[in-house]
Amino acid sequence: MSDTAIQTLKNMLAHLDDAKKYQSLRDVMETLNAPDLAAVFEDLPQEKMPVLFRLMPKDLAAEVFAELTPDTQEALIRGLSDRELKLVIDELFVDDATDLVEEMPASVVKRILAQASPDTRQMINELLKYPEDSAGGVMTTEFMELRPGMTVSQAMDSIRENGFDKETINNCYVTGADRTLEGVVSLRALVLEKDPARPIADLMDTNVVSVTTATDREETSQLFEKYGFLAIPVVDNEKRLVGIVTVDDALTILQDEINEDIAKMNAMAPTEKPYFKASLWELYKSRAPWLLFLMLSATFSSLVIRSYEDALAAVTALTAYIPMLTDTGGNAGSQTTSTIIRGMATGDIAPRDILKVLWKELRVSLLCGLTLAVCNFAKLLWFDGVGAGVALAVSLTLICTVLLSQLIGGVLPMAARKVGIDPAVMASPLITTIVDTTTLLIYFNFARLVLGL
Amino acid sequence: MSDTAIQTLKNMLAHLDDAKKYQSLRDVMETLNAPDLAAVFEDLPQEKMPVLFRLMPKDLAAEVFAELTPDTQEALIRGLSDRELKLVIDELFVDDATDLVEEMPASVVKRILAQASPDTRQMINELLKYPEDSAGGVMTTEFMELRPGMTVSQAMDSIRENGFDKETINNCYVTGADRTLEGVVSLRALVLEKDPARPIADLMDTNVVSVTTATDREETSQLFEKYGFLAIPVVDNEKRLVGIVTVDDALTILQDEINEDIAKMNAMAPTEKPYFKASLWELYKSRAPWLLFLMLSATFSSLVIRSYEDALAAVTALTAYIPMLTDTGGNAGSQTTSTIIRGMATGDIAPRDILKVLWKELRVSLLCGLTLAVCNFAKLLWFDGVGAGVALAVSLTLICTVLLSQLIGGVLPMAARKVGIDPAVMASPLITTIVDTTTLLIYFNFARLVLGL
Repeated sequence: MSDTAIQTLKNMLAHLDDAKKYQSLRDVMETLNAPDLAAVFEDLPQEKMPVLFRLMPKDLAAEVFAELTPDTQEALIRGLSDRELKLVIDELFVDDATDLVEEMPASVVKRILAQASPDTRQMINELLKYPEDSAGGVMTTEFMELRPGMTVSQAMDSIRENGFDKETINNCYVTGADRTLEGVVSLRALVLEKDPARPIADLMDTNVVSVTTATDREETSQLFEKYGFLAIPVVDNEKRLVGIVTVDDALTILQDEINEDIAKMNAMAPTEKPYFKASLWELYKSRAPWLLFLMLSATFSSLVIRSYEDALAAVTALTAYIPMLTDTGGNAGSQTTSTIIRGMATGDIAPRDILKVLWKELRVSLLCGLTLAVCNFAKLLWFDGVGAGVALAVSLTLICTVLLSQLIGGVLPMAARKVGIDPAVMASPLITTIVDTTTLLIYFNFARLVLGL
Repeated sequence: MSDTAIQTLKNMLAHLDDAKKYQSLRDVMETLNAPDLAAVFEDLPQEKMPVLFRLMPKDLAAEVFAELTPDTQEALIRGLSDRELKLVIDELFVDDATDLVEEMPASVVKRILAQASPDTRQMINELLKYPEDSAGGVMTTEFMELRPGMTVSQAMDSIRENGFDKETINNCYVTGADRTLEGVVSLRALVLEKDPARPIADLMDTNVVSVTTATDREETSQLFEKYGFLAIPVVDNEKRLVGIVTVDDALTILQDEINEDIAKMNAMAPTEKPYFKASLWELYKSRAPWLLFLMLSATFSSLVIRSYEDALAAVTALTAYIPMLTDTGGNAGSQTTSTIIRGMATGDIAPRDILKVLWKELRVSLLCGLTLAVCNFAKLLWFDGVGAGVALAVSLTLICTVLLSQLIGGVLPMAARKVGIDPAVMASPLITTIVDTTTLLIYFNFARLVLGL
């Protein structure tokens, strides 16, 4: 739904509320999707929230609640009675309840845990043990479990009896005596099976792709793309099934990770908030430190230029090509670095492929560098009208700088991964600053050599 | 599965094949997932492919086939008899068959269409009408359709009878007389419903989010993230249901679009192939034209420098800060531009928000610019030991260049979107080249003013 539609909706709900037309309000809200209603709630004044929230049927209310930003969740909780809060917690899926506990301040957490049923409290405490960026941290424990000895009709009975509060029943997991994962069977296969007496063990797929609680959440979500799964089972170190990650969570994780990568690749600290939700101060904090760091790193390029002042003074035309050369180095470097960062994120490139990458980059960068050098030489001679010496120095520098930038651009993100730094910070801005200095050194040395300075 | 695992597997299959142990070969392959088997096929010599392919059960064979890259699909098809090809086409989901027809050369397409059943051929021709980047181009026509008058038990009977060749039955679509979409009901709801005589019209969700055949495929896949859907129905202009897009396709689309955006944001033409699959020539073609274009665009910064040669000659220290200033401008610009590009891709920022963006950027960039200017002034005076005049000129330039770069970085991608250019090309490299010239102009004018040149 577009912003305008949400605005219209917000006005409509406000009018109905002011006129105390609560039945109509309830009717209207029931026709809406949870994510759209959540968007309306985000824009609502705090005192209006509980009134509207109480009017929703409790399953819709829980769905809307799970979609809200932490700030809005907190504001809403403060307006709810303990009994109302309990209803919400009971309806929430346990992974969403755990996220809530992770985001709220201590006083609110205390209230939430006091209202949660002992079962839910135990599950939340279980899930809180796992790091937020692991499969354990994003999984839910509400999955459908079957036994290999069951027949199809027994399995269907079990699903009808226990399926209501499971996050998904489209895939059911078959476990042995000690909860070891033995196989997976889809609801589709169960429904389409013609023989109700057929044992589940016959029907299930025993070649299950699973992750462990410690698997990185990004790696987990990449598996969804590769295999087209709707859910992936999560096992502990003893291969016991402890949870599942569902495809909707995988999509959210992928988007979050990509937002984070793009922020880092452009010299920003990642923020979780959408652009218009982020305050001035938050945007400033995400941008200024990196700008400052990169500005100070440019000290090296200043030092290089100052130590070649004599050469620049002798042939003033040399200065004119400094931005072109450093930009080209930066561009060439960021082409490679972004390719490698993305390739590692999607699993196309592994850290041990470093020599293969270097060999490929060596050849591509030579081709690119030669093309640029030839075009540039012609342009400088005939269009800019500089001497052949300057044109030669600039063109030779181009070949070397493209070569070096693409090699450095290939190595840096892989080296970063090896020592445990996020490769995404090795992107365009940092690579530009790094190759500036090498580009200038190459340039001035060629200039001295060719022009005899 | 890792590269090493695939290598091991490939060797194992080759050994079994050489030893003509076909039964074991078949048994081994049946324990594997289609995407893993596809990865093995990608590395296989062409003459080995048909032998292994024939050994797989036909549903697995079709799944593996759909996962192969177009080059490998073509090679494999050339090794299959017409009868074998027919079996594959019959087993493929119609959206995969359509993709195949779109990718293959004319001679292969002719063979494929000749072997397809008249029904399949008609569906393929239907789907070929839609542009590849629209919802119509990625949807499948194999969905489960129900009537509102059916009871739950009638619906389950219909699913058992017709569900086999549907891409998904987890969501079933309820249509009226002329195939108008009236609602959606999940298999979960049908299975969990206690009253078999309850009419579907009672159970279905009538508030269905749908897209039209013309909706952009990226926009369609963003809806999956927002609403957590497993499938989205696609309707024509008369609101008739014509197909569905499933979440596995949405994930692939999101990844493709992001790869494309990251390539464009780093001055590369997007390639569909993974890094190691792309040939030298393909990598060269994706990189060199942009490098060349940006190099030639740097002519403007050269012209600016040459027209201020007198100022540079008078105060040689000025040259030393050129790379720092242009880099900072580029970095500041790419922070904003990447934020806006990503915000528009995820729907957080709409093109008409341009004034809100400018107002926000104005304030953030002033804060960032002032921070940099103060730090830089101190550093130049006490660390670099330059005169107060140069330090002042450089610092004033920093404020203006951060301000201008972030404003330009905010406007350019939004303006690009308005005139129908992909905003992603307005990222770091292009913005750097553009702000270089403005930065230099500001710098030299401040220098003249402050230093009285």
